[in-house]
Amino acid sequence: MPKSIQTTAAKIKRLEVQGARNVAIAAIKAIESLAKETEAKNKKQLLKELSEAKDILFSSRETEPLMRNAVRWIINQVEKSDHKKVGELAEMVSSASQQFLKNLEDSQERIAEIGSRRIRTNSTIFAHCHSSTVTYLLKRAKQEGKSFAVICTETRPVFQGRKTAEEMLELGVKTTLIVDSAARFFMNKADFVLVGADAITSEGNVINKIGTSMTALVAHEARTPFYVVSELLKFDPVTMYGDYEKIEERSPSEIWENPPKDLIIRNPAFDVTRRDFIHGIICEEGIISPHSVIEVVHRKYPWVFE
Amino acid sequence: MPKSIQTTAAKIKRLEVQGARNVAIAAIKAIESLAKETEAKNKKQLLKELSEAKDILFSSRETEPLMRNAVRWIINQVEKSDHKKVGELAEMVSSASQQFLKNLEDSQERIAEIGSRRIRTNSTIFAHCHSSTVTYLLKRAKQEGKSFAVICTETRPVFQGRKTAEEMLELGVKTTLIVDSAARFFMNKADFVLVGADAITSEGNVINKIGTSMTALVAHEARTPFYVVSELLKFDPVTMYGDYEKIEERSPSEIWENPPKDLIIRNPAFDVTRRDFIHGIICEEGIISPHSVIEVVHRKYPWVFE
Amino acid sequence: MPKSIQTTAAKIKRLEVQGARNVAIAAIKAIESLAKETEAKNKKQLLKELSEAKDILFSSRETEPLMRNAVRWIINQVEKSDHKKVGELAEMVSSASQQFLKNLEDSQERIAEIGSRRIRTNSTIFAHCHSSTVTYLLKRAKQEGKSFAVICTETRPVFQGRKTAEEMLELGVKTTLIVDSAARFFMNKADFVLVGADAITSEGNVINKIGTSMTALVAHEARTPFYVVSELLKFDPVTMYGDYEKIEERSPSEIWENPPKDLIIRNPAFDVTRRDFIHGIICEEGIISPHSVIEVVHRKYPWVFE
Amino acid sequence: MPKSIQTTAAKIKRLEVQGARNVAIAAIKAIESLAKETEAKNKKQLLKELSEAKDILFSSRETEPLMRNAVRWIINQVEKSDHKKVGELAEMVSSASQQFLKNLEDSQERIAEIGSRRIRTNSTIFAHCHSSTVTYLLKRAKQEGKSFAVICTETRPVFQGRKTAEEMLELGVKTTLIVDSAARFFMNKADFVLVGADAITSEGNVINKIGTSMTALVAHEARTPFYVVSELLKFDPVTMYGDYEKIEERSPSEIWENPPKDLIIRNPAFDVTRRDFIHGIICEEGIISPHSVIEVVHRKYPWVFE
Amino acid sequence: MPKSIQTTAAKIKRLEVQGARNVAIAAIKAIESLAKETEAKNKKQLLKELSEAKDILFSSRETEPLMRNAVRWIINQVEKSDHKKVGELAEMVSSASQQFLKNLEDSQERIAEIGSRRIRTNSTIFAHCHSSTVTYLLKRAKQEGKSFAVICTETRPVFQGRKTAEEMLELGVKTTLIVDSAARFFMNKADFVLVGADAITSEGNVINKIGTSMTALVAHEARTPFYVVSELLKFDPVTMYGDYEKIEERSPSEIWENPPKDLIIRNPAFDVTRRDFIHGIICEEGIISPHSVIEVVHRKYPWVFE
Amino acid sequence: MPKSIQTTAAKIKRLEVQGARNVAIAAIKAIESLAKETEAKNKKQLLKELSEAKDILFSSRETEPLMRNAVRWIINQVEKSDHKKVGELAEMVSSASQQFLKNLEDSQERIAEIGSRRIRTNSTIFAHCHSSTVTYLLKRAKQEGKSFAVICTETRPVFQGRKTAEEMLELGVKTTLIVDSAARFFMNKADFVLVGADAITSEGNVINKIGTSMTALVAHEARTPFYVVSELLKFDPVTMYGDYEKIEERSPSEIWENPPKDLIIRNPAFDVTRRDFIHGIICEEGIISPHSVIEVVHRKYPWVFE
Repeated sequence: MPKSIQTTAAKIKRLEVQGARNVAIAAIKAIESLAKETEAKNKKQLLKELSEAKDILFSSRETEPLMRNAVRWIINQVEKSDHKKVGELAEMVSSASQQFLKNLEDSQERIAEIGSRRIRTNSTIFAHCHSSTVTYLLKRAKQEGKSFAVICTETRPVFQGRKTAEEMLELGVKTTLIVDSAARFFMNKADFVLVGADAITSEGNVINKIGTSMTALVAHEARTPFYVVSELLKFDPVTMYGDYEKIEERSPSEIWENPPKDLIIRNPAFDVTRRDFIHGIICEEGIISPHSVIEVVHRKYPWVFE
Repeated sequence: MPKSIQTTAAKIKRLEVQGARNVAIAAIKAIESLAKETEAKNKKQLLKELSEAKDILFSSRETEPLMRNAVRWIINQVEKSDHKKVGELAEMVSSASQQFLKNLEDSQERIAEIGSRRIRTNSTIFAHCHSSTVTYLLKRAKQEGKSFAVICTETRPVFQGRKTAEEMLELGVKTTLIVDSAARFFMNKADFVLVGADAITSEGNVINKIGTSMTALVAHEARTPFYVVSELLKFDPVTMYGDYEKIEERSPSEIWENPPKDLIIRNPAFDVTRRDFIHGIICEEGIISPHSVIEVVHRKYPWVFE
Repeated sequence: MPKSIQTTAAKIKRLEVQGARNVAIAAIKAIESLAKETEAKNKKQLLKELSEAKDILFSSRETEPLMRNAVRWIINQVEKSDHKKVGELAEMVSSASQQFLKNLEDSQERIAEIGSRRIRTNSTIFAHCHSSTVTYLLKRAKQEGKSFAVICTETRPVFQGRKTAEEMLELGVKTTLIVDSAARFFMNKADFVLVGADAITSEGNVINKIGTSMTALVAHEARTPFYVVSELLKFDPVTMYGDYEKIEERSPSEIWENPPKDLIIRNPAFDVTRRDFIHGIICEEGIISPHSVIEVVHRKYPWVFE
Repeated sequence: MPKSIQTTAAKIKRLEVQGARNVAIAAIKAIESLAKETEAKNKKQLLKELSEAKDILFSSRETEPLMRNAVRWIINQVEKSDHKKVGELAEMVSSASQQFLKNLEDSQERIAEIGSRRIRTNSTIFAHCHSSTVTYLLKRAKQEGKSFAVICTETRPVFQGRKTAEEMLELGVKTTLIVDSAARFFMNKADFVLVGADAITSEGNVINKIGTSMTALVAHEARTPFYVVSELLKFDPVTMYGDYEKIEERSPSEIWENPPKDLIIRNPAFDVTRRDFIHGIICEEGIISPHSVIEVVHRKYPWVFE
Repeated sequence: MPKSIQTTAAKIKRLEVQGARNVAIAAIKAIESLAKETEAKNKKQLLKELSEAKDILFSSRETEPLMRNAVRWIINQVEKSDHKKVGELAEMVSSASQQFLKNLEDSQERIAEIGSRRIRTNSTIFAHCHSSTVTYLLKRAKQEGKSFAVICTETRPVFQGRKTAEEMLELGVKTTLIVDSAARFFMNKADFVLVGADAITSEGNVINKIGTSMTALVAHEARTPFYVVSELLKFDPVTMYGDYEKIEERSPSEIWENPPKDLIIRNPAFDVTRRDFIHGIICEEGIISPHSVIEVVHRKYPWVFE
Repeated sequence: MPKSIQTTAAKIKRLEVQGARNVAIAAIKAIESLAKETEAKNKKQLLKELSEAKDILFSSRETEPLMRNAVRWIINQVEKSDHKKVGELAEMVSSASQQFLKNLEDSQERIAEIGSRRIRTNSTIFAHCHSSTVTYLLKRAKQEGKSFAVICTETRPVFQGRKTAEEMLELGVKTTLIVDSAARFFMNKADFVLVGADAITSEGNVINKIGTSMTALVAHEARTPFYVVSELLKFDPVTMYGDYEKIEERSPSEIWENPPKDLIIRNPAFDVTRRDFIHGIICEEGIISPHSVIEVVHRKYPWVFE
C-alpha cells in the first residue's frame, strides 16, 4: 500500500482537507498514485490493493458520499474491465480518475449555468454557511451581469458565513450579515434560499451544516422557496439500504474555549433537512424534486447501486 | 428637575442599567429622589415635574413597558389623590414607589411558585438567552428538591446564554450549551421551553431577545410546549392603541469586530413571537393563554389603560 | 304604530339602505319618530309599541347585529328607567338614540385613530370589498401625511371593490385593482389586509362579504397579517346562545343576467372567517384578539347580554 | 367526622359513583349530612370538620374539579358568613348545597338549550365516549322535533360508546357505531363533534376520556368543527397555579383479561385536548372560545380563585 | 420561409388561436405546409428552414410547452433521419406531424378513459376555468352513464367558467355556477377538483389560468382532492434548466372597460400551483404524483430533453 | 378447470387464507396444479384456462394486488414464451411460479436486512395491527443482537395487535399494549412507526388495516417518522388507470355480537394513508419515497404495466 493513501486519509481525518469536493479530489489523486506505484502482479492483486485503499479512505470521515462514490466508480471500472495486464488496468485507474474529476467540473459548471438562470436582477438570496458550489453559481450570475443581494448567516461556531460574505463582497454583491438566530427576522426580505449539501439520502433528505434544517423550517414558515445546490453524486447509497447518515460531533472548544467546569457542550457538525422543506435540488440534471432523486441517480449513475 | 432623572436616563441609554426589572427599579428610584428634592409649590407644579421626568425617562429606551408602567402608576396615584399639600403628595410618590417595587418582588415570587410546579424531576428545560425571572423560577424548583436538566442556546451576539449556563451550573443543574442554530437538533430532547419577555402586546404577542421567535417556531414544529415567564406589567398599552412595538438595532461590532469594508451588518436586539406559538404566559395571576392577556390586565391593573 | 317603522323596515328589506352603519342609523331614527308620535298612555304601552317596532325592524334583514344592538340599547334604557311619564320616557328614547349615534361616531373616530397608527409610509394594504370603517381609517392615515398603496379586489358580483378603488384614488393613494381570484398572486406584495365586518360571533369568528374568508386563507398561507376593522357592537349576542349567523343569498342575476336554462346560480352574500385567521380586531377598545371579544363586550357593553 | 364522608369517598374511589356530575352530587350530599350531624361547638370547629371532610373527599379521585369546586363553594359560604351559631351555619351548608345543585341543573338545562340550537335537521353529530351533558343536549334537540343522526365510537376499553348508542336509539335517532380507530374514515360524514369534559385547565385545554384528543386531531384534519359541552365549574383552578392535571391509569384487565406474561398494558383513563383543536366550549354562559375560559370563570364564579 | 409560418405565428400572437391543444395543432400544420412547399436543396437547408420556423413560432407566445414540444419532436425526427433526399425528409415532417397529432388524440382519449373511472354516480366535481381535456373527460363519464354534478367558478375576467357550465348543461349534467371568491364557501360540497394545465415545470408545479392556485389552496384547506388533467407533453423542459415559466399579463380592459384615471389594473393570465397541493396528474401514463413527472417524461418522451 | 382453483378461491373468500402473502402463495399453488392437470391441447387453450382461473381467483377478494400481480406474472410468462407444446408451457407455469415465490422470499429477506439497520439499541417502535413482513424485520433486528421496545395497538375489532404483542414477547422484546385510541397519548415515546401494506396506489398512497391512516396522522402530528414495510408487488396497477382501491366492509358482529335493534354498525377493513404522511416505503429496492413508487416499479417490474 503506497503511503499516499495513508497520508491522504490522515489529512482528511485531521480536517486539513475540507469540503466534499476537495476531499473527493484528494482521494482520487491518492488512488491514482497507488495505481502508478503498484507492484501488483495481476488484476486480483490490484483489486485487493484498491479494496484496502478504499477501506482506509472510507474510515477517514463518516459522511463523505462524494468521495466514496468516486472510489466506488474507479474500482467498478477496473472490475468490469476486460483488460488483464496490470499496466493497462493501472492506466484505466488513471483515466477513470480523470473522467470522474472531469465530470465533477462539468457538473459544477452545469449547476452554475442552470441555477444562475433563477437569479433575477434585484433578487435577494439567503445563504447559510459556505458552499463552493453555491458561491460558484452566484459568481456566474454576477458575471452574466445580474445585480442581486445576498443575506448570509454568520454560521456559528466557526463563522463560515463570513467566508461567504467575503467572497460576495469581492464580487461586488450587496451583502448583509446576520446572526444565525435572526434568520426568521430577515427571511421575508429574501426571494429564495440557496444552500449546499454534504449528503443526500434515499428518502430525498439532505445532510448539511448545522442550522440548515432550521433555515429550511424558517423559510418554509415564511413561504420562501428553499433550494439545495448539489452534484447528484452527493447521493449516499448506504442510506438506501437502511443505514443512517452519521452526524459527526466536533470539538466543544469551537463553541466556548474556556467553558465552566461540568458544562456539557454539544457540537454536531450537520443536521438533516427533510424533503418536504426542499423546493428543488439544483443538480447537473436540472432542477429536480427531492422525492425523485433515487430514480434520477438510477438513470444517470446506475453504478452507484452496484 | 433633579439631576437623578437625567443621570438615570443617561445610564439606561448607555445600557449601564440592563434588564427590564433593573431599568424599572432605577427609574422608580429616580422618581423617588425627585419627590424628595422637589421644590414644587402645589400639586400642579409637582405633576408638571413628574411629567417632565416621565418624558426624559421614556425617551431613554424604546421598548421598556415595565419601566413605563411603573412611572405611569406613580403619577396616576398622585393625580387621583385628594391630598393637596406637596409634602403629602411627595410622600405618596414614595409609598407608591415602594408599593410598585413590592408588587414586582411579589410577582417574581408568585411566578416562581407557579412555574416551578410545572417542573418535574427528570424534566429537561430549553432556555434561550438569559432572563432573571426564568432563572429565579428554576432556582426555586431546585430548592424544592427537583432534579432537572437545562439546555441553553449560547445566544449570539453577546452570549447571554453563557450567563444562564453559569447560573444553572452553580445550582448544580445538569446543563448543556449549544449554538443557536442547533435548536432544532436538540428540541426533541426538551420537555418544554421557558423564555422571558421584554414586552407583551395587545394582540398577545411577545417581544423578547432576537432568536426567541425562531426558538418558538422550532418548538412548535417539534410539538414542544413553549412558555413565556413574565410579570403582567410587561404588557405595553401603546400597542393596544395601534403603535408598533419598536425593535432596537444595536452595534454591528457585537457581531463582527473588524468586518470587511462595505459589509452591512444588521443587529436587531429583539423579535416578535406570535401568540399562536405560545402555550401560556406564566405570570403572577397564574398560567394564562396569551389571547386573554388584555382582559387579565384590565382586571388586575386597570390603571394601565387610563 | 307610526308608519316610519314600516317604511324603514321596507327600505332595509329592499336594500335601499345598505351597510351596517346606515341600517343602524335608519332604524334608530325610525324609533325616534315612534317615540315622538306615540300615543301610549303609560310605560307599559310604550314598551309594547317599542317591542312591536323591534320585531318589524329585526325581520327586515337576517344579519344586522349593529342595528339590533341599537334597538336593544334604546329599549333597555326605557325599561331600566325610573321615569313614569310617557313624555319623559319618549325623551329618553331620543336621548338614548342620540347617545348611540354619538357612540357610533366616536367609535369610528377612535378606530381610525388606532388603525392609522399601523400604517407606515410605504405600507401596502390589501382590501377586499368596501367598508366605510376601513376607508375612513385609510383617509385618516392619508390626512396624517402617510404615503401608502392599496391593492383592491374587484369583489364580484357587484364590484364594491371599484368603490374602494375610487375612494382611494380620490385621496391620491396609489391603487391597484385585481380580480378576486388573483388574491394569492398579489398577497405577497401586501404588508397586511384590512376588511370590515357585518357581524362578530361568540366564538370570535367574523361574518363579512363573500370572499373574505378566502382572502383570510390566502393571507394566512402567505403569512400576511389579517385585521378586521369593526365597531364592537357588530358582536351578535344570538350566536352566544347557539344560533347560527344566517347567510343571506341574493339574486342570481347579480352574477349572470341571462343565464342558460337549468343553470343553478348560487349567490351567498357573506361567508364566515374563523378566528384562527384573524390577527386582531381593530375596534374602539384597541386592537384585540378575536378570542377575547366576548369578554371585551361584557366589560364595555354589558347590556348586550341582558 | 360522620361516616357519610368516609363512605362516600370510598364509593368514589371504588368507582361505584361515576361521572363528574354524579361524583359532585354525592360529595355535596355527604357534606350536607355532616352539617346535619355535626357536634361542633362553634364556627371554627365546624370549619375544621369541613376542612377534614374536604381532604378526605379530595383524595378519593385525582381529577374531579366539579366535585372540588362544589366543596370549595360550600366551605367558602360558611367562611364568609356573618352567622356565629353552629345551627345557622349548618343550615347555610344545606342551602349552599341546594344552591349548588340547583345551579348544576340550571346549567345543564341552559347548555342543552344553547347547544340544541346548533343542531339542524339532517345534521350528523360525531360523539366519543358517553357524557350525560351531551346526551341531555341531544335529547332536547330531539324533543324540539329535529331529526338528526349520530356516529358513536365504541370507546375502548369499556365501551361507553355503546351506552351513548343505546340512549340515542331510545330517542329514535339514526345511530351508527364504529371502532375508535375508524374515526378518520367516518369524520367527513359528520357536521360537527360533541364531547364532554372531565376538567378544563387554565390554558384552555380540556381533559376527557382517552381518545378525545385523537378525535379532536382527526376532526381538525378533516376540518370538522369540534365542540366541548361542559359546565364552567369543570374548570380546575389548581392548573391555574401550575399543577398538572393528573391522568388516572386504570386496570390492565379492562384491556385484556388474560394477557400473556411480561406484557405491559398501559390504560390511561383520560387525555388532554389542546385549545387549538376546540372550536368552542358550550357552557351555561353561551358558546365561548376556550382561550377566554379563565376570564369567563373569573366573571361568573370569582370564588373559584379564592 | 413560407407565409404559413408567419401567418400562424401572428394568429397565435393575436389570440385568434387559443388553448394549448389548438395552438399546438396550428403550429404543426404550419410546419407541414413549410415541408410541402420547401425549396431547400439538402437536409442542411431544410433544417435551417425548420429552425427559423421554430424561432418564429416560439416567439409568438411565452408559455406554450405543448406547441414547443411538437415542433421539437418534428425537427428531432428529421435530424435523426438517415434519409438524405429533401423529398423524403419533407415526407418525414408530414408523418411526424401526423404521428404527433395522433398521439395527442390518443392521449386525450386515454386521459378521459382513466379519469372517468374516478367519477362515481353522485360525485360532485369542482372545476375552475375551461379546459377541453377536462370537459372531454367529463363527457366520457356521462356517456358511460354516470350521473354527477359540477360546480363551476365563473372565472373572471373573461368568464370561461360560463363555457364550462354551458358544455355541462348540454350534457345534461346538474351544474352550479358561483363567483370565484365563493370557492371556499362551496368547496366542502365537492368530492374533488379537476383543472387543466398550460405547463408543468420540472419541480412538478403546474401553470394554469389565474385562480387555479387559489382553488388548490382552498381545496387543500377543505381536504378536497385536487387533480390536474393534462397531456404529459405540457411538461416544459426549459424549467428543468433553470428558466422560470413566464406569466403573461393581459389587457386591463378585460377587468374594467372604463376605469378611473390613475388606477393600476393588473391582469396576469396564469398562476403557479405548487406540487404539494396536487394529489395527482391524470395523464396518458395514468394517475401520477407530480413529484415524479420528470422521470415519467424521461421514460416516455426522452427526446424532450435532447 | 381443475377444482383447485375453485377451492382456493372459495377459501380466500371465506378468509380461511389470510394475509396478502398467504393469499398470493395459495393462488400460485392453485395455478401450478392447474398447469399440472391441464388437458389443453395447445397454447391457446392453456391461455384460455389460465384466463378463466384468473377471473375466478381475482373475484375472490377485492383488494389483493400481490396475488393479482403473481397471476399476471405467470400468465405473462406463458404468453411471451416461444414454446409451442403444452407440456413445455405447463412446465413454464411451474418455473414461473417458483420464481415468483423465490422472489417473494428474497424480498422479505432483503426488506428485513434493510429495515433492521434502522433499528438502534434502545429504539422504541410503534406498530399497528399485525404484518408478517414487519414482525420478520423485527425478528431479524433482534437476532442481530439489538435490544429495542415495541408499543402495539390492540387493533379493534379483531385484536391482531395481540398477535404482534405475542410474537414480540416470544422474541424477548419489551412490549407494551394500548387501546387504539391511546395512540396519541403514547406516540411521543416512539422513535418511529412501522406498518405493513395491503396495497400501494399509483399516487403513492397505502391501503392497510383500518386505523393505519389515523396512526399516520397521529405520528405526523407528533413528528414521529412513519414507515411502510412492503414488497413492491403490493403496487396495484388498476389504481394507475383510474380505478379506486376497493375498501372491503366486514361483519358487524366483529364489533358487537348482540347489538341493539336498529343500530347501524360500520366495519370497513382498511383505510387509505396519503403519501404525505409516509416518510418512506421499506421495500426490496431500499427505502424509497412513496412519490416515486410508480417509477421504481416501472424499472423493477415493468411487466406489471403490460
